[in-house]
Amino acid sequence: MNNEKNGKLSIIPLGGVELIGMNMTAFCYDDSIIVVDCGMAFPEEDMPGVDLVIPDISFLLENEDKVKGIFITHGHEDHIGAIPYVMDQLSVPLYATRLTMGIIDHKLEEHGLMTRVRRKVVSFGQSINAGCFRVEFIKTNHSIQDAAALAIYSPAGTVVHTGDFKVDYTPVFGDQIDLQRFAEIGKKGVLALCCDSTNAERPGFTQSERTVGRTFDNIFAENQDRRIIIATFASNVDRVQQIINSAKKFDRKCAIDGRSMVSIMATAQELGYITVPENTLISVDELKNYPDNKTCLVTTGSQGESMAALSRMANGVHKKIFIKDTDTVIFSSHPIPGNEKAVSRVINELYHKGADVVFQDVHVSGHACQEEIKLIYSILKPRYAIPMHGEYKHLKAGAEIAKMLGYDSDHIFILSSGDVLSLNEEGAKVTGKVHTGSVMVDGLGVGDVGSVVLKDRQRLAEDGIIIIVMTLQSGTALVLSGPEIVSRGFVYVRGAEDLMDSAREVLNDCMSALSRKNVNDWNRIKTELKAALSEFVWKETNRRPMILPIIMEV
Amino acid sequence: MNNEKNGKLSIIPLGGVELIGMNMTAFCYDDSIIVVDCGMAFPEEDMPGVDLVIPDISFLLENEDKVKGIFITHGHEDHIGAIPYVMDQLSVPLYATRLTMGIIDHKLEEHGLMTRVRRKVVSFGQSINAGCFRVEFIKTNHSIQDAAALAIYSPAGTVVHTGDFKVDYTPVFGDQIDLQRFAEIGKKGVLALCCDSTNAERPGFTQSERTVGRTFDNIFAENQDRRIIIATFASNVDRVQQIINSAKKFDRKCAIDGRSMVSIMATAQELGYITVPENTLISVDELKNYPDNKTCLVTTGSQGESMAALSRMANGVHKKIFIKDTDTVIFSSHPIPGNEKAVSRVINELYHKGADVVFQDVHVSGHACQEEIKLIYSILKPRYAIPMHGEYKHLKAGAEIAKMLGYDSDHIFILSSGDVLSLNEEGAKVTGKVHTGSVMVDGLGVGDVGSVVLKDRQRLAEDGIIIIVMTLQSGTALVLSGPEIVSRGFVYVRGAEDLMDSAREVLNDCMSALSRKNVNDWNRIKTELKAALSEFVWKETNRRPMILPIIMEV
Repeated sequence: MNNEKNGKLSIIPLGGVELIGMNMTAFCYDDSIIVVDCGMAFPEEDMPGVDLVIPDISFLLENEDKVKGIFITHGHEDHIGAIPYVMDQLSVPLYATRLTMGIIDHKLEEHGLMTRVRRKVVSFGQSINAGCFRVEFIKTNHSIQDAAALAIYSPAGTVVHTGDFKVDYTPVFGDQIDLQRFAEIGKKGVLALCCDSTNAERPGFTQSERTVGRTFDNIFAENQDRRIIIATFASNVDRVQQIINSAKKFDRKCAIDGRSMVSIMATAQELGYITVPENTLISVDELKNYPDNKTCLVTTGSQGESMAALSRMANGVHKKIFIKDTDTVIFSSHPIPGNEKAVSRVINELYHKGADVVFQDVHVSGHACQEEIKLIYSILKPRYAIPMHGEYKHLKAGAEIAKMLGYDSDHIFILSSGDVLSLNEEGAKVTGKVHTGSVMVDGLGVGDVGSVVLKDRQRLAEDGIIIIVMTLQSGTALVLSGPEIVSRGFVYVRGAEDLMDSAREVLNDCMSALSRKNVNDWNRIKTELKAALSEFVWKETNRRPMILPIIMEV
Repeated sequence: MNNEKNGKLSIIPLGGVELIGMNMTAFCYDDSIIVVDCGMAFPEEDMPGVDLVIPDISFLLENEDKVKGIFITHGHEDHIGAIPYVMDQLSVPLYATRLTMGIIDHKLEEHGLMTRVRRKVVSFGQSINAGCFRVEFIKTNHSIQDAAALAIYSPAGTVVHTGDFKVDYTPVFGDQIDLQRFAEIGKKGVLALCCDSTNAERPGFTQSERTVGRTFDNIFAENQDRRIIIATFASNVDRVQQIINSAKKFDRKCAIDGRSMVSIMATAQELGYITVPENTLISVDELKNYPDNKTCLVTTGSQGESMAALSRMANGVHKKIFIKDTDTVIFSSHPIPGNEKAVSRVINELYHKGADVVFQDVHVSGHACQEEIKLIYSILKPRYAIPMHGEYKHLKAGAEIAKMLGYDSDHIFILSSGDVLSLNEEGAKVTGKVHTGSVMVDGLGVGDVGSVVLKDRQRLAEDGIIIIVMTLQSGTALVLSGPEIVSRGFVYVRGAEDLMDSAREVLNDCMSALSRKNVNDWNRIKTELKAALSEFVWKETNRRPMILPIIMEV
């Protein structure tokens, strides 16, 4: 990176395809660095106990004096979730549109960082100067309002970063994606396009958010005798707006449940991104004052998240809402890959409690399908294509679209996390790699859970732990007490008394043998006890619990 | 159950909807019990370390003298997987068709049970007398050959159990489903139909297995310069047959990789269920003797299973096969719910290694869709409808189909595990419940992992363990050594020295306080140490590791 002279721009994904969800890309030119987005990921199955995962920003910390600002495209967790952790370490200004900043502010407040972070709300069409860069925010459409693409002007040329986007000709709130501005920038020449590829595998056009509104009207018409409960993404303000509209039309009161949804809706209402007709919105507590078929509840939990409001209703542990056979529950969502089973579990529970469940065709995506991606390429006509966002197969599909549009494969780049893509009008190639990775956040700890701890946790989860404790006389191998055995997560003790008795014998035999050989080295004693017990346990049970010998000295 | 007099038949799911995968149903009349299927399930996410799950058969063990036999519909794990464990405890004969029994035999051999189990191979059309029951095996189609429906004749009437089925008018091997026999039985009167509901949510007809053969031909034609690797289900012999046919047609050698597939193909070949043209099948070792584009590899791992052959290739840890950019990898499968993410992971890795990946439209289901289910109802015309197999939402969809066909809701039964449905021509209702449940198998242990152990494992996985060890003088509270702290899976020690030092101080303070209060009760000492450390750790880290105090006595 430091060798980038002669007018080359570098694009470096600090999150990216190996670190999905942690959307974060650095753009470097000479002594200026700007960062686009600052996302977090939810932990994978092999990260037990981890709350969330954020990108390793050591590259930015090492170059802190060069970093001119962080530019946020929109307010989804995979683009803003790491902000509180990153801003705690990095002192640079933050730029975002109005609703996006409203959501960020809420996070910063929770982390007590509001006074420390320089924040600037940017309007569409406005440009920010940052070192040798200029960054313009361009209106797009997405499943959250105020989403922006960024035109990044550098001495080496203009890069357009779409953020997450779709083309919605009939958005529920605000304007269509600013195709005219894209075209204008395209006309002047675009060096590269970093393009959302999440839906690049899907042919055709993503439908307008407004189509879901018509579906809601139909569902409300068909369920006039029933209570209606609708689960959707907490941040999809337009979706909630349309539910409120249908509720109003069918003379129902509407309540919102779920901490994150209540919080985002409060922000949206405060900033004027949602219009609530008078006497429509009520609190969950007030629901009981109205007949069921005159109410509608909007809730979180559309992904089957075990602690979310809908899951608690399905499992009968919600404090205020009990599912009845006169309920119609609607999933206004698709399961995000990996959540299919959890969603099915909630649907099964709801059916089991007698509810009707509608879980198909009450959702549209927020991401561009193939024809929209082609549209953006066609009005921008970038020299280089850089598919971004999603798994490798999505980037691959994004690359295929570029190929179909006539791009040579040496003008298409699927970047790995940390890849340094150096480019200007003369050429583009990956010239190096910077350190990236994920940092695990568990409770209050950021980064103190590493691979050793994770491996231990997995091992513990698989077969539990057996602890060997023994008190030896100081400086000798004279056994004062033990060896004693304690196990957790191995086998239930009541069924395993014989096994434990035999294990104790194995350890005693081992100690006798060591004593005959006059072994006094405690480390050797530990190693031998561990080996003997491990072999015995494997033979008897085919399990490999963690075995932890502890010697106390008296 | 024991009260069933007056000519009532009882149907009791011992596995069923709460115990998915463990397909096992008891049919009881007077002093006779017969059992249909004996399946196992793979562990859920909340069962770390568990290898497989089998049904609790205490109801059968309590009534062992009445149990006349176990009748198996087909050779899939969710219908036969528990056989070795159940036959180890229950001494009753086993009935199955030829290929099904071949696969069962292999299992029994592995468990050293071949000589102990009475087994009888049954032909289609043949009937078995079992107490007051007669059981007839009827030919169906499914994604494994030799699948059977069972007509269960009892004094209270005839119940047809479809097993897993589809209607394939052009099967790859053997005959179509015996619709004539179904109609004949229907004509004579059927009391109840236990009907496969796995695909009851899907409209239309499931396509013939033979359509996949045409797809293979197209893929082979389009990939004449490339090596072809095809992943599918180990037990889908017809699928492998069709791959071999295409390989032969396009002059390629074919090898099979993956332990379970090799084993089932050996059984199928031995019993004549697959036809291998001479000089087509080679071993994986022989692949290197042929040009890549003259070979084709069939492999397990289509579900992204981490230890299966394809996953090992994708991860670069397969001993013999290395993925190249001249490979085309085909997933001839759909992800089973819950496996979506694992499958995506493998696809991403394959793309990353440069392979082409085909993962859509190279598979047909083995289960009946809505129109086939309607067909079976229409030729059997059962008095009662009992949707079986699948999650609650699938049974619900199966019930909806029966409703559409004109069944009243009091003639449709969605049974929970253990429900006793008593029925005859006069009526049907759930009259009781028998004990059921799942038994976890971990290593060599059957049922010794219970909820306590699982909860411990989960806790250990979430936040690890902290062990407090201390040596006290016998009968007193005099500390001879410690309290010492050892942790695993909590935080990485290098980053946590200060934390551990402070924790030790907390324990010392606690011991001093106890000593001042003259507390000598070791249980109380343990409780207080645990409470003090727990509070400290929560305050400092927001984590709740398991805390285990151990006192050694000298």
